[in-house]
Amino acid sequence: MDVLRIGLIGAGRIGKIHGENSARFIPGARLEGIADIAMQEEQQTWAKGLGVRLISAHPQDILGDPAIDAVLICSATDTHADLISAAAAAGKHIFCEKPIDLSVPRVKAALAAVKKAGVTLQIGFNRRFDRTFKRIRELTLAGEIGDVQLIKITSRDPAPPPQAYVAVSGGIFMDMMIHDFDMARFQAGSEITQVYAMGAVLIDPEIGEAGDLDTAIVSLTFANGALGVIDNSRKAVYGYDQRVEVFGSRGATRGENETADQVTLATASGLVSAKPLHFFLERYQGAYRAELASFVDAVLHHRSPEVSGEDGLENMYAALAAGKSLKEKRPVSIDEVRVE
Amino acid sequence: MDVLRIGLIGAGRIGKIHGENSARFIPGARLEGIADIAMQEEQQTWAKGLGVRLISAHPQDILGDPAIDAVLICSATDTHADLISAAAAAGKHIFCEKPIDLSVPRVKAALAAVKKAGVTLQIGFNRRFDRTFKRIRELTLAGEIGDVQLIKITSRDPAPPPQAYVAVSGGIFMDMMIHDFDMARFQAGSEITQVYAMGAVLIDPEIGEAGDLDTAIVSLTFANGALGVIDNSRKAVYGYDQRVEVFGSRGATRGENETADQVTLATASGLVSAKPLHFFLERYQGAYRAELASFVDAVLHHRSPEVSGEDGLENMYAALAAGKSLKEKRPVSIDEVRVE
Amino acid sequence: MDVLRIGLIGAGRIGKIHGENSARFIPGARLEGIADIAMQEEQQTWAKGLGVRLISAHPQDILGDPAIDAVLICSATDTHADLISAAAAAGKHIFCEKPIDLSVPRVKAALAAVKKAGVTLQIGFNRRFDRTFKRIRELTLAGEIGDVQLIKITSRDPAPPPQAYVAVSGGIFMDMMIHDFDMARFQAGSEITQVYAMGAVLIDPEIGEAGDLDTAIVSLTFANGALGVIDNSRKAVYGYDQRVEVFGSRGATRGENETADQVTLATASGLVSAKPLHFFLERYQGAYRAELASFVDAVLHHRSPEVSGEDGLENMYAALAAGKSLKEKRPVSIDEVRVE
Amino acid sequence: MDVLRIGLIGAGRIGKIHGENSARFIPGARLEGIADIAMQEEQQTWAKGLGVRLISAHPQDILGDPAIDAVLICSATDTHADLISAAAAAGKHIFCEKPIDLSVPRVKAALAAVKKAGVTLQIGFNRRFDRTFKRIRELTLAGEIGDVQLIKITSRDPAPPPQAYVAVSGGIFMDMMIHDFDMARFQAGSEITQVYAMGAVLIDPEIGEAGDLDTAIVSLTFANGALGVIDNSRKAVYGYDQRVEVFGSRGATRGENETADQVTLATASGLVSAKPLHFFLERYQGAYRAELASFVDAVLHHRSPEVSGEDGLENMYAALAAGKSLKEKRPVSIDEVRVE
Repeated sequence: MDVLRIGLIGAGRIGKIHGENSARFIPGARLEGIADIAMQEEQQTWAKGLGVRLISAHPQDILGDPAIDAVLICSATDTHADLISAAAAAGKHIFCEKPIDLSVPRVKAALAAVKKAGVTLQIGFNRRFDRTFKRIRELTLAGEIGDVQLIKITSRDPAPPPQAYVAVSGGIFMDMMIHDFDMARFQAGSEITQVYAMGAVLIDPEIGEAGDLDTAIVSLTFANGALGVIDNSRKAVYGYDQRVEVFGSRGATRGENETADQVTLATASGLVSAKPLHFFLERYQGAYRAELASFVDAVLHHRSPEVSGEDGLENMYAALAAGKSLKEKRPVSIDEVRVE
Repeated sequence: MDVLRIGLIGAGRIGKIHGENSARFIPGARLEGIADIAMQEEQQTWAKGLGVRLISAHPQDILGDPAIDAVLICSATDTHADLISAAAAAGKHIFCEKPIDLSVPRVKAALAAVKKAGVTLQIGFNRRFDRTFKRIRELTLAGEIGDVQLIKITSRDPAPPPQAYVAVSGGIFMDMMIHDFDMARFQAGSEITQVYAMGAVLIDPEIGEAGDLDTAIVSLTFANGALGVIDNSRKAVYGYDQRVEVFGSRGATRGENETADQVTLATASGLVSAKPLHFFLERYQGAYRAELASFVDAVLHHRSPEVSGEDGLENMYAALAAGKSLKEKRPVSIDEVRVE
Repeated sequence: MDVLRIGLIGAGRIGKIHGENSARFIPGARLEGIADIAMQEEQQTWAKGLGVRLISAHPQDILGDPAIDAVLICSATDTHADLISAAAAAGKHIFCEKPIDLSVPRVKAALAAVKKAGVTLQIGFNRRFDRTFKRIRELTLAGEIGDVQLIKITSRDPAPPPQAYVAVSGGIFMDMMIHDFDMARFQAGSEITQVYAMGAVLIDPEIGEAGDLDTAIVSLTFANGALGVIDNSRKAVYGYDQRVEVFGSRGATRGENETADQVTLATASGLVSAKPLHFFLERYQGAYRAELASFVDAVLHHRSPEVSGEDGLENMYAALAAGKSLKEKRPVSIDEVRVE
Repeated sequence: MDVLRIGLIGAGRIGKIHGENSARFIPGARLEGIADIAMQEEQQTWAKGLGVRLISAHPQDILGDPAIDAVLICSATDTHADLISAAAAAGKHIFCEKPIDLSVPRVKAALAAVKKAGVTLQIGFNRRFDRTFKRIRELTLAGEIGDVQLIKITSRDPAPPPQAYVAVSGGIFMDMMIHDFDMARFQAGSEITQVYAMGAVLIDPEIGEAGDLDTAIVSLTFANGALGVIDNSRKAVYGYDQRVEVFGSRGATRGENETADQVTLATASGLVSAKPLHFFLERYQGAYRAELASFVDAVLHHRSPEVSGEDGLENMYAALAAGKSLKEKRPVSIDEVRVE
C-alpha cells in the first residue's frame, strides 16, 4: 500500500480540517469519502470541491466501502466508541478525535475491538505534533535537560465555549484539561500517578450553574518521580495561551506561544508586540496536519501510532481523578479511578 | 469571471511553488496548464499529480489556449520580457517573477506591450506579502509611527549561490538587493532618489573574480525626505536574516525573523533559541501564497496589482544606480540612470 | 528627624549588604554603629572603611546608644525575636531579616513588644522591592489586568545550600518558599487560605537524609477566590530563576529574569543569550537598596512599613501549613496552623 | 600608590556623576577636591556632603595641590585642551570628558603635553564600558563570530537638546555621533578609513536654522576591510535607543537596549513591554562607574588607559570627515582631514 484511502465521518468544524488536510496536504493520503448524518448542502458543496468520490449521510457507507482503508472519526463524542468498534470490525484503520468517550467501560470495549481486529488506532491529541512542544520533547529525549523534575503547563482559552457546549462537554477536566494531561504524560515520558485539583468559577457564573468550573489548577505526580502542574482558564483576553516548561537536572526548556507576526511597535507608551494566535485552529494548524501525516505514515509503514488508544484512556483517568479530587478535596491517585 | 484559469510557464524551483500554490491554495485560481521548454519526466509526473489539463514543452501552447486567462512567468530571466510581450498580445494577465529583465529598454518595451493590451501585470516581489513586513506597512499607514524618517533593512543569505548562478545573476544589487530596494520603497511609501553603495568581497574570492560582491551597504535618500540603509551579505552562518526597521516621528517598528519553533533551552552555557528559518522557501512560504492570491484577486476584481511593472522598473533603476555608485565611488541619483 | 541614624547588628553576608547600603546609598540614612558578637578583624576593617563611629562585639552597645534611632537585625535567625523585643523596649525602630523566628509564640511575643513600644518594624522580604515584581503589582493596582484569578511563581536556586545550612534552615518551605508565599500574598493583595504541598528529593539525597526536600510544588487558594501555584527547586543549572505571572480578568502580567547583559550571539548552532543573574545578591541588589530606602522613609515620614511583622507571621503560617500538608498528604487550611 | 587621590574640575551634570562615583563607588579612588569656576551654593552643599577636603572656584587650586594625583576634567568643552596641558604640566593623571576640543591643533597640543609629561590620559567615551557593548567586543575577541564584516550602530536620543546647546555643540557628528564613531572603531578593532554622510532636518526646523542636522546616516569603511553604518536621530519618542550589531564570518552579535523592568503586560490590545531606559544617565549609569574604575586602575597599575587621547583624536577625525562628506556630497577619506 503506498496511498492510504481515507473516509471521513463527521464534517463539522474539526472534520473539515482533517478532510482538507487529507485531501490536500498529506502526500500519502487520498480522501475517498465523506459521511455526515446531517449532511447539509454547504457540506456537500465543500466535499465536492475536494473531489471526493463518495458523499453520504450514512457512516456505514464509509465503513462498508472496500476501497477505503482508514476512517477519520470526527462525529459527536457519543458516537465515537461505537464507530471505533464498527470500523475495527470492518478492518479499517482508525483516527478518532478526542475524547474516545466519557464512559470508561465504553472506551475499553472500543479498545478491545481494535485490539481484536489488529487495526491501527490513533487518538486526536494533536498538541504533541505542535512544532514547539515536539521540539521540547526531542530535546529531553536527546538528554539536553537531563532527568525531568518539573513540568508546568499553561493552557488558557480566549473565551468560554457556548453554554450548550459546556453542558455536554464532560466538564473542564474531561473537555479541556485532558489535552494538558496528555501533554504532561508526553513531556514526562511517564504516567501520572496522582492528581490534586483546585477549581473555581471566576469568569462566568453560568458555567458554575451548569456544574462546571472555568478556572483550575491541578498538581501532578509522575511515576518517574517528577512533579507537575497545569493551569486552565476559559478566558484569557489576550488570546489562546499555550505554554509548556520542562525543568530537568541539566537544563530546562520553555515553549512560548505563536504569534501572528514578528513586529514590535515602539511608541511613547511602550513596546507592543503581537498577541498569541487567537485559538486552536490558528495555533495548531500545523499540528493538525502533522498528526494526520503521522497517522497515515504509521499505517503505511506498519508502526505504532504516536498517540494510542491507551493514551486516550490514561488521559481520561487523569481527568476522572481530577474531578474526584475536586469533589473530595483531597489528592487522588490514578489507581483509584482505574477500572479493570 | 469567478475563477482565474492559470497557465504556468517554467517549472523550476520557483515555478513549482507558484504551480502548487495556484493548484491547491488559492480559492479563486485553477491551474490549467504547465509549460517548460525543458520538461523532464519528473516535472511531468509532478504536473499530472496536480491534475493539470495541458502539459507541454512549448510556452506558446499556454499563450494560445483560449481557456487560460492568466500566465505565471517563471522561466529564465532572459525570457521574461519577450514572454510578457507575447502574453500581453494574447490578452493574458501576467504574473512575472523578478527581475523583468537586465536591460532597461527591454523592460520598457514589455511594459509598453502590457499597457497597450490593458492586461494586469504583477511582478514577483514577494516580500511585501510577508506577514511581518506587511504589518509594518499597515502600522505606518495607520499613522502609528507618524512620518517615516529612517528605514533600515537587513538582508543576508545563509550561503552564497553557486558560481554559475553568480555569473548570470546581474550582480548582488540586481539579483539580491533588488528585493530590498523594493522593500525600502514599499515601506517608505516614496521613491528612492539617490543611492550610495559600498561593497566588498569578504566571503568568497571566487565571487570577486566573477566581478561581483558578497557584502554591501547601500545608503538611500527618498523623495519624501526620509533616509535609509540596506545591508547585504551572501553568508550569514546562522541562517536567512531578513529584518526591517521603520523609524518615524511618533514611533518605530521592527520586524524580526521567523524561527522554526518557539523553544528556549536553558543550560549552564546560556539560553539557546531557534535560528531564523533557513532560506527564502521557508521564510516566505506564506508570502508566496499571499502574493499569488493577491494577483488572482486583482484580476478577478479589476483592481491594480500590489506590485506593478513600474515597481519592477524603479527597483531596477535603484540597482543600476547602486552599481554605478560603487564603480564611480560617489552617490548617484536615480535620475542619472533613468532612461526616457 | 531628617536623617535616620542606624545601627547594624550582625555583619555577615546580608548584614554587610544592608550596612553598605545604609552607609552609601540611602540619602536619609546614616550608619552610626556596627555590632557583631563574633567581630573579626576583616569586619572591623570593613566597618572602619564605612566611617562608622561605633564598632562593637556587643549588640547592647547599639541598643543602648541614644544617638541611634533604628537597628538593622541581620544576626542569626535564633537571635531575631529577642533582639526585636530588646530593640523595641529601647525605643528603636527595627528592620529585621526574615524569618523572624521558627517558633510562632516567639514571633508573637516579638510583635507584641513592637506594638507596645509603638516603633516601626519592617521584615526583610526584599523581593517586593524588585523593580519587575513591584511593577507587576502596580499594574494590578492600576486595574490593568482586572481581577486577579491566577498567580504562578517560579523560584529556583542555582545550587543547594551547604548541608550544615540545610540542617538549621527550617526546611524548604520555611527557608526558601517563605519568600514566595510573601510574593504570592503581595501580588494577590489577599491572604492565602489553604495550601497543598507536593515535594521530592530529586537533586541531592543528603537533603533527603536531613529530612528536607529539594523540589516542591505548592498549590494555593486565596481569600479573594484566586488560585495560585509556586514551584521551587534547589538547583537550576542555568542560574537563579525568579519569575512571577499574574493572570486576571482583563489581562495578565509576566515578570522575567534579569540577565547580565542584553547580547544575543547568533551562530550556526542557534541564538544564545545571557542566563539569569547567578543568585540573589546579583538579582536583588536593587531590591535590597529599595527595601532599606523604604524602611528609612517609613520611619522618617511616620507611615506604615511596606512589609510588616504581621506579613512575616502570615508567611510563616503558610510555610507551616505547607509542611503539615506534605506530611499529612492533604490540603491544609491556614487556620489549622494559626495560633491565637 | 594604592589609592588615587582625585580632583574634580567642573561640577555640572556630568561632573557630579564622576564626582559621586569617585567618592563612593570606586574602591581605589578618593575624591579630595572639587573646583568649578561658577561654584554655586547648591554645588558647595553637594561637595561637602561627599566629604571633600578642597572646594574652590579655581581649577588651579586642584592642579596646584600636591596631594592630588589625578584630575577629572568635566568643565566646558572649550576649557578641556588648556586644562589637559596644565594638568599634564603639573604631573597629574587626567580623565577628560569628550570631546577634547573642537579644534584639531588644540587637541594635538594637549596630547603632546600629555606625552611630554608622561601622565595617563583617558577620554570619556563611556559606552565602551556598557556591559552589553563590552560583552559584544569580548565575544569578537574570543573568536565567536570570526572576522568582523559588518557593524551596525543605532544611536537615537529621546529628545533634541536645547537650542543653546545645539549652537555650541559642534554639530551632530562632533557632539552625538562621535560616540558612535568610537563604538564603531572599538567594535571593529580597526580604524575608520572613509565615511559617507547623509543628513536631514526632519524633527525640528530650528536645528536646521542653527546649521545642524537632527537625523543622519553615515556609512563607514574600516582598515580591516569591514563595512559599517551608523544612524542617529535626535528624537526617538520611545526613549534612548542604543544598539549595536556586529556581523562576522562565523556568527553575529546583537546588543539590545536596557529597560526599566522585565514585565510584559498582555491585554486584548497586545503584549506591552518596557521602553528603553530614558537617556544616557540611566542607560550608562554602570558604564560611567566602570570607565572611572578603569581609569583609576590604569593609573594605579601603570597600564594603558582603555580609551586614549589618540582615540579621542581619531573619533574627531571621523566626525570632521562626516561633516566634510555632508557638505561636499561625496565620500571622504579620513586621511583628507587628518592634520600632521
